[in-house]
Amino acid sequence: MNGRMSSNRLPPIRALTPDMDGWGFFLCTQKDVRQSRSGELFMTLFLQDKSGVVRARIANDVARLREEFDAGDFVKVAGRTELFNGRIQLTIDRIRRVNPDQDRSQGFREEDCVLSAARPAAEMWQELEELIQHVRDPFIRQLLQQIMTAQAEKVRVWPAALTVHHAYRGGFLEHILSVARSALTLGAAYGADQDLLTAGALLHDIGKLQELDYDRATSYTRDGNLVGHVTLGTIMVRAATSAIPEFPDVLRSQIEHLIVSHHGHKEFGAPVEPMTIEAMILSAADDLDAKINQVRQALAEEGEGEFTAYHARLGRVLWKG
Amino acid sequence: MNGRMSSNRLPPIRALTPDMDGWGFFLCTQKDVRQSRSGELFMTLFLQDKSGVVRARIANDVARLREEFDAGDFVKVAGRTELFNGRIQLTIDRIRRVNPDQDRSQGFREEDCVLSAARPAAEMWQELEELIQHVRDPFIRQLLQQIMTAQAEKVRVWPAALTVHHAYRGGFLEHILSVARSALTLGAAYGADQDLLTAGALLHDIGKLQELDYDRATSYTRDGNLVGHVTLGTIMVRAATSAIPEFPDVLRSQIEHLIVSHHGHKEFGAPVEPMTIEAMILSAADDLDAKINQVRQALAEEGEGEFTAYHARLGRVLWKG
Amino acid sequence: MNGRMSSNRLPPIRALTPDMDGWGFFLCTQKDVRQSRSGELFMTLFLQDKSGVVRARIANDVARLREEFDAGDFVKVAGRTELFNGRIQLTIDRIRRVNPDQDRSQGFREEDCVLSAARPAAEMWQELEELIQHVRDPFIRQLLQQIMTAQAEKVRVWPAALTVHHAYRGGFLEHILSVARSALTLGAAYGADQDLLTAGALLHDIGKLQELDYDRATSYTRDGNLVGHVTLGTIMVRAATSAIPEFPDVLRSQIEHLIVSHHGHKEFGAPVEPMTIEAMILSAADDLDAKINQVRQALAEEGEGEFTAYHARLGRVLWKG
Amino acid sequence: MNGRMSSNRLPPIRALTPDMDGWGFFLCTQKDVRQSRSGELFMTLFLQDKSGVVRARIANDVARLREEFDAGDFVKVAGRTELFNGRIQLTIDRIRRVNPDQDRSQGFREEDCVLSAARPAAEMWQELEELIQHVRDPFIRQLLQQIMTAQAEKVRVWPAALTVHHAYRGGFLEHILSVARSALTLGAAYGADQDLLTAGALLHDIGKLQELDYDRATSYTRDGNLVGHVTLGTIMVRAATSAIPEFPDVLRSQIEHLIVSHHGHKEFGAPVEPMTIEAMILSAADDLDAKINQVRQALAEEGEGEFTAYHARLGRVLWKG
Amino acid sequence: MNGRMSSNRLPPIRALTPDMDGWGFFLCTQKDVRQSRSGELFMTLFLQDKSGVVRARIANDVARLREEFDAGDFVKVAGRTELFNGRIQLTIDRIRRVNPDQDRSQGFREEDCVLSAARPAAEMWQELEELIQHVRDPFIRQLLQQIMTAQAEKVRVWPAALTVHHAYRGGFLEHILSVARSALTLGAAYGADQDLLTAGALLHDIGKLQELDYDRATSYTRDGNLVGHVTLGTIMVRAATSAIPEFPDVLRSQIEHLIVSHHGHKEFGAPVEPMTIEAMILSAADDLDAKINQVRQALAEEGEGEFTAYHARLGRVLWKG
Amino acid sequence: MNGRMSSNRLPPIRALTPDMDGWGFFLCTQKDVRQSRSGELFMTLFLQDKSGVVRARIANDVARLREEFDAGDFVKVAGRTELFNGRIQLTIDRIRRVNPDQDRSQGFREEDCVLSAARPAAEMWQELEELIQHVRDPFIRQLLQQIMTAQAEKVRVWPAALTVHHAYRGGFLEHILSVARSALTLGAAYGADQDLLTAGALLHDIGKLQELDYDRATSYTRDGNLVGHVTLGTIMVRAATSAIPEFPDVLRSQIEHLIVSHHGHKEFGAPVEPMTIEAMILSAADDLDAKINQVRQALAEEGEGEFTAYHARLGRVLWKG
Repeated sequence: MNGRMSSNRLPPIRALTPDMDGWGFFLCTQKDVRQSRSGELFMTLFLQDKSGVVRARIANDVARLREEFDAGDFVKVAGRTELFNGRIQLTIDRIRRVNPDQDRSQGFREEDCVLSAARPAAEMWQELEELIQHVRDPFIRQLLQQIMTAQAEKVRVWPAALTVHHAYRGGFLEHILSVARSALTLGAAYGADQDLLTAGALLHDIGKLQELDYDRATSYTRDGNLVGHVTLGTIMVRAATSAIPEFPDVLRSQIEHLIVSHHGHKEFGAPVEPMTIEAMILSAADDLDAKINQVRQALAEEGEGEFTAYHARLGRVLWKG
Repeated sequence: MNGRMSSNRLPPIRALTPDMDGWGFFLCTQKDVRQSRSGELFMTLFLQDKSGVVRARIANDVARLREEFDAGDFVKVAGRTELFNGRIQLTIDRIRRVNPDQDRSQGFREEDCVLSAARPAAEMWQELEELIQHVRDPFIRQLLQQIMTAQAEKVRVWPAALTVHHAYRGGFLEHILSVARSALTLGAAYGADQDLLTAGALLHDIGKLQELDYDRATSYTRDGNLVGHVTLGTIMVRAATSAIPEFPDVLRSQIEHLIVSHHGHKEFGAPVEPMTIEAMILSAADDLDAKINQVRQALAEEGEGEFTAYHARLGRVLWKG
Repeated sequence: MNGRMSSNRLPPIRALTPDMDGWGFFLCTQKDVRQSRSGELFMTLFLQDKSGVVRARIANDVARLREEFDAGDFVKVAGRTELFNGRIQLTIDRIRRVNPDQDRSQGFREEDCVLSAARPAAEMWQELEELIQHVRDPFIRQLLQQIMTAQAEKVRVWPAALTVHHAYRGGFLEHILSVARSALTLGAAYGADQDLLTAGALLHDIGKLQELDYDRATSYTRDGNLVGHVTLGTIMVRAATSAIPEFPDVLRSQIEHLIVSHHGHKEFGAPVEPMTIEAMILSAADDLDAKINQVRQALAEEGEGEFTAYHARLGRVLWKG
Repeated sequence: MNGRMSSNRLPPIRALTPDMDGWGFFLCTQKDVRQSRSGELFMTLFLQDKSGVVRARIANDVARLREEFDAGDFVKVAGRTELFNGRIQLTIDRIRRVNPDQDRSQGFREEDCVLSAARPAAEMWQELEELIQHVRDPFIRQLLQQIMTAQAEKVRVWPAALTVHHAYRGGFLEHILSVARSALTLGAAYGADQDLLTAGALLHDIGKLQELDYDRATSYTRDGNLVGHVTLGTIMVRAATSAIPEFPDVLRSQIEHLIVSHHGHKEFGAPVEPMTIEAMILSAADDLDAKINQVRQALAEEGEGEFTAYHARLGRVLWKG
Repeated sequence: MNGRMSSNRLPPIRALTPDMDGWGFFLCTQKDVRQSRSGELFMTLFLQDKSGVVRARIANDVARLREEFDAGDFVKVAGRTELFNGRIQLTIDRIRRVNPDQDRSQGFREEDCVLSAARPAAEMWQELEELIQHVRDPFIRQLLQQIMTAQAEKVRVWPAALTVHHAYRGGFLEHILSVARSALTLGAAYGADQDLLTAGALLHDIGKLQELDYDRATSYTRDGNLVGHVTLGTIMVRAATSAIPEFPDVLRSQIEHLIVSHHGHKEFGAPVEPMTIEAMILSAADDLDAKINQVRQALAEEGEGEFTAYHARLGRVLWKG
Repeated sequence: MNGRMSSNRLPPIRALTPDMDGWGFFLCTQKDVRQSRSGELFMTLFLQDKSGVVRARIANDVARLREEFDAGDFVKVAGRTELFNGRIQLTIDRIRRVNPDQDRSQGFREEDCVLSAARPAAEMWQELEELIQHVRDPFIRQLLQQIMTAQAEKVRVWPAALTVHHAYRGGFLEHILSVARSALTLGAAYGADQDLLTAGALLHDIGKLQELDYDRATSYTRDGNLVGHVTLGTIMVRAATSAIPEFPDVLRSQIEHLIVSHHGHKEFGAPVEPMTIEAMILSAADDLDAKINQVRQALAEEGEGEFTAYHARLGRVLWKG
């Protein structure tokens, strides 16, 4: 394949336009081999890099190429872009699994091929540490330090959800920081307990580290489905507070309340609804951050026109301004 | 007061009829001193014994009698019954706090004055132990033994709820045994895992031992309001399984699923909905037992007519047959 | 076609695996001739036998083969199995209408080609008769005997629904027996009237004999759509009780109540909600049986993974254990 | 009592104003003897005549007067009116049961003392007969004639509901005529089948003749609660069509559909929702007539101000114009 | 193309049957060029004339024909009809943009090619003027005259909605006249204010003239999405009443109330719910007219069988009689 | 009355404790004369001053005192406080209408007797002006200046609602400033348009200036009920933008969108749901501010215990910390 590759390297996915020709490194997250109604085989793929996701198809030589790679592999791909039903699509001529040692010389880097938060992980991690430093209550500070240290590896890379919002590498960290910023400014305006709000913002979704399995692709774990991140997170926090000597019981109750109530309403899966000003602020900040992230994704994916197509989850069209 | 008491002892509350005259020992669970619109003081009480609850009122000598006892006290009462808006009411002439040592000679026994499940606690406890003996899986059996032993004191006396259903001494135990019987017969019909069903039936409400505070009267605890029994119960079970060496992880997930999903629907406070046949059976058995207990209470309290008054919680009238 | 058939007979549908080659007798329940986007004709069929349903397609010689048979016909088919989007599919080479006289010698039997309840009809019928024998109230026993005798032909073969649950030959009988078993054990636990529960379990869906039309395939009748099985069933029972001299009016009311209220809630189509313990038990048993049947179907159809795909009607994924 | 009665006769209830003094004949529909918080007995009554309902109270001589009459009796009353919390109230000095023979000479007539529709029953009955005469389809005409003849006694006097709308003598007939007028003009506009609409309008609530018990006061019957008027009505119509030789089956289905679907939505108790233009028109006309009757009642009962008080059933205030 | 056209002219779309061959003039409202799964190009069109809409496809010579016309063009088409999945489809051999001057000689008329209300615009306009003439209140009459005169151009041609009901040329006028007829007959029956009802019927959807953009095809405007026709209409009416000297304020309030409340319930987008009998009548008439128009469309599009397919928006099947 | 007044002046309402004796100036906002069940007259009042609201009752000399003042009057009152069902109540001995000229010497000031926002109006008004100064877009700044100048008199004193939240003098201004602060900090975090958010925060409830009538007491206006503040506000803004030359149309649409969508969901009375990030932020900030204000009121009114009583509007108890 080497010799026959076009000499043009494709730009990042977010920068693709129709009628480009070239090659690139991607992560293949989905691979379906299907039969057309008239019997021919063809493959539909989803490829991603740091900047976005693109649909791709292979119509020729499918029987051979299907053996060349699997979903979850990094791949080297050559093809051309075209507009298909209003979105960019890549028609693939050649594809093979990446050979890391060899392809590194051509610029392959794993981290460039995984859809990621816009901000670097190190920068976000530092913001997280600063938030924890600002906590005045020593018990809350210790709690946050211990949980975040223990979970650091996951916290740095986890997505915040399977599909709905912040569904990319670093999305979890991006989301909790954003919720923390909002909750703290709202909390300042309403004279709420800032230490509790920091704890709530950083811990409300901590159960997602057990709910989701993430290794380039994301899936639900058994506990994620059967127990759910709201309860899993409360259990994690209970274990952590139990390990801190003399952790005040009333503080533990309040933090657990922030977690169990953060979905705001029973019908959204909160077994208990917010009973404190801090819980109301946290729930509002979380909901708003999730909605705005969905709006941004919808705006980023859309083509022409002043409004997006109907957004099924939000139940409305969105204005593109 | 001694010398002036009527010589008739009143029958148990459930057996009271209009125009009875006499004295008795009761637990006073509620005591309100109010002012009539025209300014006079009067007291409204709720008295209970093992068999039921009766409303009582004091219209004379209120200023002095209000000092004689508090809600939560056992009291000796003299008065007469009458029909008031279709229900029995006790009009009290004399009332004082029980003096246990002295009144025992007249037949006072604490356990006779507390509204209780119909079956004796010892008999129910034995049924519980037998249910646990029948569990074949050694991990589940050990889990149930350890939790029930640790909580035995509460399990024997706790009510199942503040007001809705099984709201009396021993109601918790009565309810979980009833759910277990139903779930196991349904489970047999559908070939479900009987050990899991036993665990689910006995543990689904275990968080109520922390949600409610019960010492003759019942109230919500701080954790009961802020965290809720669904999550509290899951945390208790997680702690218990963690303490059993090599407790299988998949078993732990399933039992936790039974607890978090037992309310059946998100809008009823289940953060996760039943995903297994066992969870569906448990949720159906729990719902049915709570409903039937409410129906029985409504039928027991009702006066004449073929139908009860409108039952606000169930949203309908009930047929008395 | 005879001479060219492969000599292998395919196993029952539930036992099909990929890459099998052979022939078999089936009932064709659906036949669509479509044009591919590029203009070629192809046929999509649904074939069933006693054990299950399989999708089939014909891509060659469509113009001729489409004349060979219709939906509703028993067919003899030759082809091979393959995996298509995770499910078994049959690609058909040859197909023709069954010639009963001639094909019987090769083992064709109508009853083997119709999707059916797992238990034999005769065995289920006998269980039904025993249930009726156990009824102590002579009026209820007579009512059940008369209705079941009059409807025997339908009761033995009818499905319980068009698609949702027990949607196969004998599904009606399988469902009412299962509901009866559950309702009677629950009724025993709660001291409910077992005769009434038997009547409710056996008659609650009796209107489906008029709501559905079943002759291998199932469809709604005019009355089924316009009047609905809840009301149709009540009318049938009213007619039957009217024909029994001195049938007690209070009994008639109770039985009609069991039928009109068996969907449990107004929003599920119950014009009246359960007002008796028997009606609550029946409604719970019916709902649970329908749900568990759906779960079993979903588990039977599913491929790999610990959880099923999202089940739209139940609104969740299911755990496969 | 005779000699002491004031010589003024009170005007009809709708014409009462504060500070009137006099006597009158009424129907007592409700009689509650209660104890004030300070222990005195007093009676609260509801009295009605043809034109309206008025609250009354007796504070003196209660122990004796309570024996003089019961709810359901016609009574002769002397007292004075006053404004109580914005509404007219009658304070009663003397009250006794009517002695029909003797009181007739003073102008007592039963029909003047029962809350009734504004239009005379005879006039409404004639409109009903004309509506039936206009039906062209002989089967529908015969059906309506037979049912209305058989039920004539009830149809002339029944109320349309216990409390919600048209809850007075003749309200049933008033309501079905009003629905018929609306449905027929709407049906003319949309080219719907006028005969079917007449049948639907006249029969949609026919089950209320069995749902309610009416003998001056209104109550639910056993069948009314347990089976409900929607199903009861359908059963009545089925019985009637079965008795008419060669009644077309498709016509029967359509009429039954009009009855079972007339509540419009499942959550309002329609087991089946409207599937024909006629059923949609009938359901809209019925809903509108019930709402407008409630609005008129609310406006009639209200005191000052441009808007009524919050109307709990309609969930809003109403403008008085 | 001229010389090669078949000499048969196709009948109006509503009269098309399978296997017709010929040519016709149509408006092309939608044009999609797609790639089959196997890579070939094909075009799917929607064509309309005055009487209906038909799907069409082009499989040959796509690369050239796609340049011949655009969505929004009038086209001359030659092809043949066939049945495709139960509906008529046109397979196109030749297609080109209409040349108005030249094609007029062959009978091309714009107005024949646009899906339109059944009644001629002039006739509907005259009915509108008569309705306005009948208004007795001079302020309301003046208001209606001024608004309708100012908006005459749009009122004559606008559709009533994008897709749901009356979605064709003249649909707006057809809808408001139909609502007016219904509201006025209902209003007569209930003694409501006929002038107000006329105003409400003619103005309730007036905001749609700003909500929708219509030039053969229909789309939402920016204000239509961001502000919505309910509020836009109220603003238009406020502007108009402000321009009429001494327009009574109470009248203005009532008319605005009719507009803001015409969706009947908050969850259907009414910021305020009907508080007057007129508003209740208008809302009922509007809802019924929209539903019946949907039923008629569904019946017109349907093939065989006694019931339509499931109608997703209405949530039920419909009976075809 | 002068000479007999106790010499003690009562502290502000928020500082009242049981068993205080003295006199004070208040605004009487509600006055009910009722009859006790036993026939005596008594009066129930609500009195307010700047700091709070207290219930009062008069049991003696009612017939004379009822003529001394009306609801809406400032009154001079003498009496003593007591605890009544857990809340402070004032039992009044003497009461008369304030004579402003004469009572000013004793310290009567109108503004001290009206329940008011905690912050002085002048300070809030200055913050409002600063917010407007910070708007960079000249059209938005001009719009806000013109509307606020024109409405200044109302803006300074209006409450934000009749009962739910900020229901006191200055509550409107307090609420919009609080929403503005929250929306602007959230907007900064999400890069939203700060000028639009300022406009949305300051104008979203502007229709309440027409919806409510406020002159010490608050009530709904005719337009408030019939049209509602959402639509009234949009009309006001449309009038204002129309009067500003060359006000950009797209800006007008966006601001109107902020107003019509600020209730967030259709079922809460938003005819259109938020379609921009600014509208989502505004709606979240508004909802949170209203909720927190309700929580604070509930906490301020509550007596003992760790949790408040059940809060019907919020549907839960609240933690008092």
